[in-house]
Amino acid sequence: MARSEQRKQPRKAPAKEPRRNAFYAQSGGVTAVINATACGVIETARRHGDRIGKVFAGRNGILGALREELIDTSVESAGAIAGLRSTPSGAFGSCRYKLASIDENAREYTRLIDVFRAHDIGYFFYNGGGDSQDTAHKVSQLGARLGYPVVCIGIPKTVDNDLPRTDTCPGFGSVAKYVAVSVREAALDVASMCETSTKVFILEVMGRHAGWIAAAGGLAQEKPGDPPHVILFPEVPFDETSFFARVRDTVDGVGYCVIVASEGTRYPDGTFLAESGARDAFGHAQLGGVAPTLARMVREALGYKYHWAVADYLQRSARHIASATDVEQAFAVGRAAVELALTGRNAVMPTIVRESDEPYRWRIGEASLRSVANVERKLPKAYISKSGYGITAAGRRYLRPLIAGEDYPAYRDGLPDYVTLRNELAPKKLPPFEA
Amino acid sequence: MARSEQRKQPRKAPAKEPRRNAFYAQSGGVTAVINATACGVIETARRHGDRIGKVFAGRNGILGALREELIDTSVESAGAIAGLRSTPSGAFGSCRYKLASIDENAREYTRLIDVFRAHDIGYFFYNGGGDSQDTAHKVSQLGARLGYPVVCIGIPKTVDNDLPRTDTCPGFGSVAKYVAVSVREAALDVASMCETSTKVFILEVMGRHAGWIAAAGGLAQEKPGDPPHVILFPEVPFDETSFFARVRDTVDGVGYCVIVASEGTRYPDGTFLAESGARDAFGHAQLGGVAPTLARMVREALGYKYHWAVADYLQRSARHIASATDVEQAFAVGRAAVELALTGRNAVMPTIVRESDEPYRWRIGEASLRSVANVERKLPKAYISKSGYGITAAGRRYLRPLIAGEDYPAYRDGLPDYVTLRNELAPKKLPPFEA
Repeated sequence: MARSEQRKQPRKAPAKEPRRNAFYAQSGGVTAVINATACGVIETARRHGDRIGKVFAGRNGILGALREELIDTSVESAGAIAGLRSTPSGAFGSCRYKLASIDENAREYTRLIDVFRAHDIGYFFYNGGGDSQDTAHKVSQLGARLGYPVVCIGIPKTVDNDLPRTDTCPGFGSVAKYVAVSVREAALDVASMCETSTKVFILEVMGRHAGWIAAAGGLAQEKPGDPPHVILFPEVPFDETSFFARVRDTVDGVGYCVIVASEGTRYPDGTFLAESGARDAFGHAQLGGVAPTLARMVREALGYKYHWAVADYLQRSARHIASATDVEQAFAVGRAAVELALTGRNAVMPTIVRESDEPYRWRIGEASLRSVANVERKLPKAYISKSGYGITAAGRRYLRPLIAGEDYPAYRDGLPDYVTLRNELAPKKLPPFEA
Repeated sequence: MARSEQRKQPRKAPAKEPRRNAFYAQSGGVTAVINATACGVIETARRHGDRIGKVFAGRNGILGALREELIDTSVESAGAIAGLRSTPSGAFGSCRYKLASIDENAREYTRLIDVFRAHDIGYFFYNGGGDSQDTAHKVSQLGARLGYPVVCIGIPKTVDNDLPRTDTCPGFGSVAKYVAVSVREAALDVASMCETSTKVFILEVMGRHAGWIAAAGGLAQEKPGDPPHVILFPEVPFDETSFFARVRDTVDGVGYCVIVASEGTRYPDGTFLAESGARDAFGHAQLGGVAPTLARMVREALGYKYHWAVADYLQRSARHIASATDVEQAFAVGRAAVELALTGRNAVMPTIVRESDEPYRWRIGEASLRSVANVERKLPKAYISKSGYGITAAGRRYLRPLIAGEDYPAYRDGLPDYVTLRNELAPKKLPPFEA
């Protein structure tokens, strides 16, 4: 009854805006939740079929646009697209490819516009970090200049949490949760064995330029004295003497010492610990790993038995332990990007706006791409404890809500049942282009 | 009604057997589920209060018995003991401490019996690997000889899966699941970036003497060509030429190559790759890590961009992604140990007996400690593929059920809410002893 009544109501007049296709690309290092953003973009676009035709995804990110390798997402089932929400990494491929400035390489920007024109693309959604926001900003300017206006929306993504104007970056919360959980678990292992075995455990985490991820390890600590006992931030110049003293004091007092080390830990002169010039017997530079480097230093200075782990890609792909908050926000920025585009906004990026810490409340905001491009947000000094080896209550207050909640993927045969898309390319219409 | 009728029935006559205390100790490397076994022991003992008085747990394993540091588990609430089921690592502490042979060190065995006698301990439950089963076996023999018979039950535990007579060892299934899930996730990351970034990813896993854990990485593969593309087993002598050829062919064919390397990977002469004699600029032996060693070799021979991860303790403490099958079996062997003791069995170990692969069915069996002690179960050759770089269908059939099911811990503030016990020591009754 209700349905037939609805049908009798006069249909809205068709929107004046033309129906155009959309292009979506994933950029830079992938995360556990970037596909949740893709899910938000595609599902929302599908709900606005009157305004948005097909959503094309760039095969391997922006390279897909330059090479006219456009994945036609319209052939994917609703179930497959929904599955993106719980599938880590970049379902369409990503790339590390920064477009040069327009002056240096107008050719690439022109090509983008050519491809957009050939496929009637009126919306450009670029899902990435600072560089990507800069690119999206330039494309929006150039399109207008070249007589092919295209709506350009940046969508935040980075495990490094270093985008400005947004309270956090989708992708970070899940790495933070992985690191905090791993520290808590490994620390229990070390604690239970320290009487006769390992005294010092070092976990190396990502974050070459900023200590956001290392700071998240601090969440594993419930009360003073709990692990982690030492966090090494890129922001705090590494001081051997004070480091050794702290490790020794911790082992003396607690029986063991758990260290979280950012891969970006560096000496006061800026040299990374992991690139400290050591060479192997063949004269090769010793391979990175701040964790093994620290382990060697600890053994030589203090003689403790140690173990070390390097989480590397495991930390940013660990969808199995993703933060529910992060997943929700990743989806929300994807949805918001499409909604912003449809309400006529251009050259903007949806942001996460924190309204309160506890209870944690947030909403979607927006920032101009101009204000976001090429600005790096540093870990605030106020989040690093006075000793330089821990996080403050303020840091904890900021970080804690970002790891809240679990959002488990479905499992089959004991393994996460991640989706694989068909990833069919749309027929090419233009001559090849050498990116 | 039914209840009052039950009450009217004559109560069973009290058991003839005396009520005696029990001693439980965790031994060797801890696992994500060894506390589930402790939970099985303690909860079952509590249900048999007529026969078993207190359960004492050794502080730091067998050292706790030698030092008369007996944790009185009777002061722990039912909720805390239940929480052990989902808390990783050794809640009472563990140790790497192997008792010498009785001839070499009768003093230690005598001390054990003295402590047992002082605290009226009639049941000895020793939860560990091969060495621990050997110790439990010796204690059972010596007790009788010294006129203090004690029921000795070994309980299997080891991530290495190398105990004989049992289909699997509690602890292994959860490491296997962690490794398989991590390989699947990290491989998605590599796949999505390989066009412009990392071509070769190496995950180093535990298993110095046997490739059980490395083999589990093979479960991430759904169909031929899927990652992992290369598994390096300690059982297969490392051949550089064939390895490089396989990596190159994989990168050429698939675009990237995911490698799971056992820490025990070795050259034909038995030298571990991770200890291949490389020295840094200061003449120090290059620190272990088969993963960074392989990474350097790949870069030098093939020039590919690589990443590597070393899971170390993360893999064996990862209760957050434990196998439900493993948790259930870990609990079951703890419960069975007490039940065996109460039915008069001695010098035995409960085992897991597989009844069928699919559907997976298992039951508890038992093996004599004599038959278990000092026997190492190797990874069957039939589980390693002909190439030497993968697992066979038979291997997959064996491994798959062991990672089945998820058993998530409770979370608070975004982190697993693991229990911490009070761990109060029982008053000492004997003079000190230097272990």
